[in-house]
Amino acid sequence: MNQQRLNRVIQNMREEHLKQILVTSTASVYYLTGYWVEPIERMLALYIQDNGKVMLFGNELFDLQPQEGLELVLHSDSDNPVRDLAKAIQPGEIGIDKFWPSNFLISIMKLRSDIIPVPGSGPVDHARMLKDKDEIQQLRHASKINDMVMKKAMEQVRPGVRENEIASYVEKLYAKNGGDRSPEGQVVSFGTNAADPHHWPADTVIKEGDGIVFDIFNPIKRYWCDMTRTAFFRKVDGDQKEVYETVRKANLAAEDIICPGIPMSDIDLTARKLIEDAGYGKYFTHRLGHGCGLECHEIPDNSSSNHMLTEPGMVFSVEPGIYIPGKIGVRIEDLVLVTEDGCEILNDVTKDLKIIG
Amino acid sequence: MNQQRLNRVIQNMREEHLKQILVTSTASVYYLTGYWVEPIERMLALYIQDNGKVMLFGNELFDLQPQEGLELVLHSDSDNPVRDLAKAIQPGEIGIDKFWPSNFLISIMKLRSDIIPVPGSGPVDHARMLKDKDEIQQLRHASKINDMVMKKAMEQVRPGVRENEIASYVEKLYAKNGGDRSPEGQVVSFGTNAADPHHWPADTVIKEGDGIVFDIFNPIKRYWCDMTRTAFFRKVDGDQKEVYETVRKANLAAEDIICPGIPMSDIDLTARKLIEDAGYGKYFTHRLGHGCGLECHEIPDNSSSNHMLTEPGMVFSVEPGIYIPGKIGVRIEDLVLVTEDGCEILNDVTKDLKIIG
Repeated sequence: MNQQRLNRVIQNMREEHLKQILVTSTASVYYLTGYWVEPIERMLALYIQDNGKVMLFGNELFDLQPQEGLELVLHSDSDNPVRDLAKAIQPGEIGIDKFWPSNFLISIMKLRSDIIPVPGSGPVDHARMLKDKDEIQQLRHASKINDMVMKKAMEQVRPGVRENEIASYVEKLYAKNGGDRSPEGQVVSFGTNAADPHHWPADTVIKEGDGIVFDIFNPIKRYWCDMTRTAFFRKVDGDQKEVYETVRKANLAAEDIICPGIPMSDIDLTARKLIEDAGYGKYFTHRLGHGCGLECHEIPDNSSSNHMLTEPGMVFSVEPGIYIPGKIGVRIEDLVLVTEDGCEILNDVTKDLKIIG
Repeated sequence: MNQQRLNRVIQNMREEHLKQILVTSTASVYYLTGYWVEPIERMLALYIQDNGKVMLFGNELFDLQPQEGLELVLHSDSDNPVRDLAKAIQPGEIGIDKFWPSNFLISIMKLRSDIIPVPGSGPVDHARMLKDKDEIQQLRHASKINDMVMKKAMEQVRPGVRENEIASYVEKLYAKNGGDRSPEGQVVSFGTNAADPHHWPADTVIKEGDGIVFDIFNPIKRYWCDMTRTAFFRKVDGDQKEVYETVRKANLAAEDIICPGIPMSDIDLTARKLIEDAGYGKYFTHRLGHGCGLECHEIPDNSSSNHMLTEPGMVFSVEPGIYIPGKIGVRIEDLVLVTEDGCEILNDVTKDLKIIG
């Protein structure tokens, strides 16, 4: 058990008036115990009481060991997985992690009609939102690897190359540099494909004058990196330049205001206003970014509707984009850490307009 | 809506005394509506009443269209996603799909204290267990592709080759042949690595005399293939031959008895007895197999504890194995379809002992 993190979770429980919670997401259990378990259809639950009592319930097939301050309760595939958990929990409200499969919740409610399940991801999610020293080191390291991968990916662009070739190359490079197996693919989009921010790499071959969006992301020792750059193959025209410079300025302006104590919404609105003023407002179709850590997308939401104030230790993406259907797509993304007196951009690849190939 | 499938689901609801269910898994919603939606943190729910009324609740960002017989109710990211659903459901028991995230269930229970959530995956899971004509064609096609991929993967074995090289080659070959993006990796294990049935491909280089386990699986147009073969690099010794032949006989004996109307447990026990009689019982450490269709692992469980009777339309794997730690691992797996008068082995790659490279 990471006692410091547990203490912060318990403090958050008290603030949210939760006396007991079940933590069940792979990332949250790892955050507190150091065990990375993907339970699939089996049951995993870390039970925390606000008095500091912690019990971990899991299948004996998981690779779990007892730890100081953590009682381990194992079940086998032939047991009712929630039986022991139902015996341990207290009557009354119990906070439940948001993605816990309903079958377990229904099963425990049947055994314990005296509990009242309520939303319970808050205490751990809010602790995880403020990265500690170890986590900051891990995130810096992951983004450093990502800088290297991005530069090498750009070097792969040559006549005849296909989107999915570059995407595979990127995946291999992560694997060679300590990347974990990722369930996600990479985004590498040529020309008009880039106008769809969710385009998946296909057999599309590069053409002279194509914009190329590289949105590359992978966990490195559990912590995610995530960066986007847009470059141009061999030439660039005036319209492309204008769109590119608008996005670049929006990215820089948003990053420029980041410091502790400002509303998250101000960051999104700074980028958005700049893009709107340039006449491209309706083509910036998504929020400015997302928190990033043990999961690629976590809190804080970096959007105009999030009025939470920034705090040191937050890490989130700043990724404005302009997508003109059938014409062009440009996105520029960094991960940013809020520090005591400003912010630290975790990515280092130039954002100046680049012609490559 | 696939009306025939819906009718079977409603019949199953009546047998299970469920008047209303929420179907929320990606594969089950696809099975009935043809929409493949991976909702991640957003809400997707197909509401079915036993009177035939069907409503689909989803986020407007999903690519959903109204269909004959299907009322579509969309919400946006700023709405409470369960609000409309809470208005539509009836009081009393409601069957809930097993993996529906708890946060939605808790949210709906708060709005509707007059509902009683109960397990509700049965009606669709049982319909999906008996594949219809279209599905059988899809599964045959997927396994045909897999036969081709297996043969080509074996041709890649040459001095100096690494496990993960072959695994990547297999992934590319699926992608080139209509394979969907898969969240899973491939199992390619050399020598003693194969003694761990869950070994992931690494940088291990092939050595003369290594056994090689190829366990390869991928969805092809949504339907999974899954096959394992074990071959030997350049030479094989007497012990390896004995283990191999035991597994081969166990695979053949189990497949030999498959026909409609027998307990699933008989199939596992047939393979298990043969391996036990040969003295390797304690090295066959897993169930004989798993159902396979829109998910790689679904019902029916092919194990000694499943007393369900076989029925035409079931598709499951038959994959006995022997794993002697530090020494050898052998597994041989086919997908098998139960037919009206026996069974059809969906894989066609030889199971005779093969020396390759």
